[in-house]
Amino acid sequence: MTRIAIDAMGGDNAPRAIVEGAVWACMEYGIPIELVGKLYDIERELDRIDQEGIVASIGGSLFPTKRIKVNTKTLDIKKTQASEVIEMGEAPGQAIRKKKNSSIVLAVNAVVTGSADAVVAAGSTGAAMGASLFGLGRLRGIERPAIATVLPTMKGPLVLIDSGANTDCTPSMLYQFGLMGSIYAKSIFGIENPRVALLNIGEEEGKGDELAKETYKLFDENKDNINFIGNAEGKEIFLGNCDVIVCDGFVGNVTLKTIEGVAKMLFYMIKQEFYHDLFSKIVGLLVKPVLKRIYLKINYEEFGGALLLGVKGITVICHGRSSAYAIKNAVKVAYNAVKSGINESIASCYGEK
Amino acid sequence: MTRIAIDAMGGDNAPRAIVEGAVWACMEYGIPIELVGKLYDIERELDRIDQEGIVASIGGSLFPTKRIKVNTKTLDIKKTQASEVIEMGEAPGQAIRKKKNSSIVLAVNAVVTGSADAVVAAGSTGAAMGASLFGLGRLRGIERPAIATVLPTMKGPLVLIDSGANTDCTPSMLYQFGLMGSIYAKSIFGIENPRVALLNIGEEEGKGDELAKETYKLFDENKDNINFIGNAEGKEIFLGNCDVIVCDGFVGNVTLKTIEGVAKMLFYMIKQEFYHDLFSKIVGLLVKPVLKRIYLKINYEEFGGALLLGVKGITVICHGRSSAYAIKNAVKVAYNAVKSGINESIASCYGEK
Repeated sequence: MTRIAIDAMGGDNAPRAIVEGAVWACMEYGIPIELVGKLYDIERELDRIDQEGIVASIGGSLFPTKRIKVNTKTLDIKKTQASEVIEMGEAPGQAIRKKKNSSIVLAVNAVVTGSADAVVAAGSTGAAMGASLFGLGRLRGIERPAIATVLPTMKGPLVLIDSGANTDCTPSMLYQFGLMGSIYAKSIFGIENPRVALLNIGEEEGKGDELAKETYKLFDENKDNINFIGNAEGKEIFLGNCDVIVCDGFVGNVTLKTIEGVAKMLFYMIKQEFYHDLFSKIVGLLVKPVLKRIYLKINYEEFGGALLLGVKGITVICHGRSSAYAIKNAVKVAYNAVKSGINESIASCYGEK
Repeated sequence: MTRIAIDAMGGDNAPRAIVEGAVWACMEYGIPIELVGKLYDIERELDRIDQEGIVASIGGSLFPTKRIKVNTKTLDIKKTQASEVIEMGEAPGQAIRKKKNSSIVLAVNAVVTGSADAVVAAGSTGAAMGASLFGLGRLRGIERPAIATVLPTMKGPLVLIDSGANTDCTPSMLYQFGLMGSIYAKSIFGIENPRVALLNIGEEEGKGDELAKETYKLFDENKDNINFIGNAEGKEIFLGNCDVIVCDGFVGNVTLKTIEGVAKMLFYMIKQEFYHDLFSKIVGLLVKPVLKRIYLKINYEEFGGALLLGVKGITVICHGRSSAYAIKNAVKVAYNAVKSGINESIASCYGEK
């Protein structure tokens, strides 16, 4: 039985969206849950859900709100008290040492003690990483854990690694990110020989900053271990010609948030244009189902959360603004990651069988 | 009289689109032109234009093709022979030293000798930068020239600097980029006290890699000289809450190309969806004018090209895929930059009056 521990207090919409998403996942997929947080808040949310049901809707104003009735008493949901919460502004390293009874530290602890098998967290990314690294430890041979985010492309899913865990990297760190990303693409998406590319400012060898040039060489020397296909520029991310894109966490995070920003601006512009005049308004009504289909294809909520790779356990890091729908999908991501044996595969690269 | 020199041989669509764009600018704005390249090719294009007219259309399949008749003999167009061309794959530093008669080197030389006042180039960015730096020299006090690209936002234009000239940067370089970007926003867009932000992975001070942390401090210490408003994340680029975003050329280039990639994917998806079924096809026809308006707002061709700031002269660097329309606008950008006295303003920051 695979149980997923969830930091019920983390995220902009916590505890409401988190508890709803967890209940939804438990109900829809039958995945056992452990909610970690202030028991009073958790109980209150569960009571509310028993009365009102859960808002089982996809985010975005394009979609109608739908309510599903639930009896949470019939679901396999453990509740664990955590008296403290790490806030977004706090320095992660300090906070996890000081707040030993915080929801994120105790959620990770649930995995350490074997009460749960994976953690889902939508609060401070730094705190989730720190707690995981501190509580679970690194996989043997791994220099630094990295965050692997899944992006939609014109063809299939793409793993972007590192998307924010490490700002200052070395070539050997980036090489390991490539290996871990490759194992991710294989274990989770079933891609046989994942194509790994280095995010760079030109396609030719010799392009880029010092880090990129050195990393290129390292990948090139290790082509027996990894299907390295060379450099990829930002505009190629979405063509679907590679399965894994490697970069340092600074570039990865800027890239990820830029993508979010562009998509948001375009949807904003489309909406604005449909209020332009009466004709546009009428067309706007007709165009709604088309926009919905596109929204679903690029909606980050579909992937739920990003995996922290390189630690001895499964931690799924969610967007701070996660909706219940995103949390539901993140629980599924965590569950699938546990089942995939991804960490065993990573460990076996470094001699652990 | 301000004359603009153009590398007629640079770019994916050269010499055709380049010559057409130059002729178009000369005709529409009355800006005198100097076409630099293989005379045989230039003459052939001009003859063709005299017979067929120019394809005066905005790029993108959403727009109809329109032809305008021109008699190039009546326009103020100088032609300068350049027997060599620097190709995209060549190492820029080596190429500009070896090919002294290349179109880009001679186009820059036209500014050096006073035959022209600015250069427009759509070929190898590295070669255009190298030729400008070598031929024109740096402005006094400037460590490294940087590329300033203009992006559309939800509110107004935004200057992204550096968008690709310098891959490995120091805090003092980034600080200068901020100063130059600020002067750009003021000189060209008339923004009185441009808001300058540092591209980073979080808003709080202390976020980011070592470079970002040190640069933040430097900006903060110099608030008397620059309207530094703090860090900006990738998702904030398009909100229009700042006028200048500073980053190193690696991050800037990845960001720029990512934006291009996302926009392309979304337009691709929108198109695909309108072929989904008969109903969608009909809606697609109705929606065309709306998509056109959005396309125009985000079309990179509107801004024509990016300015290389920090050299003693005006160099406008265009997208390799530039259409005639983009080149026409780039000529206008170059012309306006000359008229704005932007270099005098930058130089005066460092004591030159």
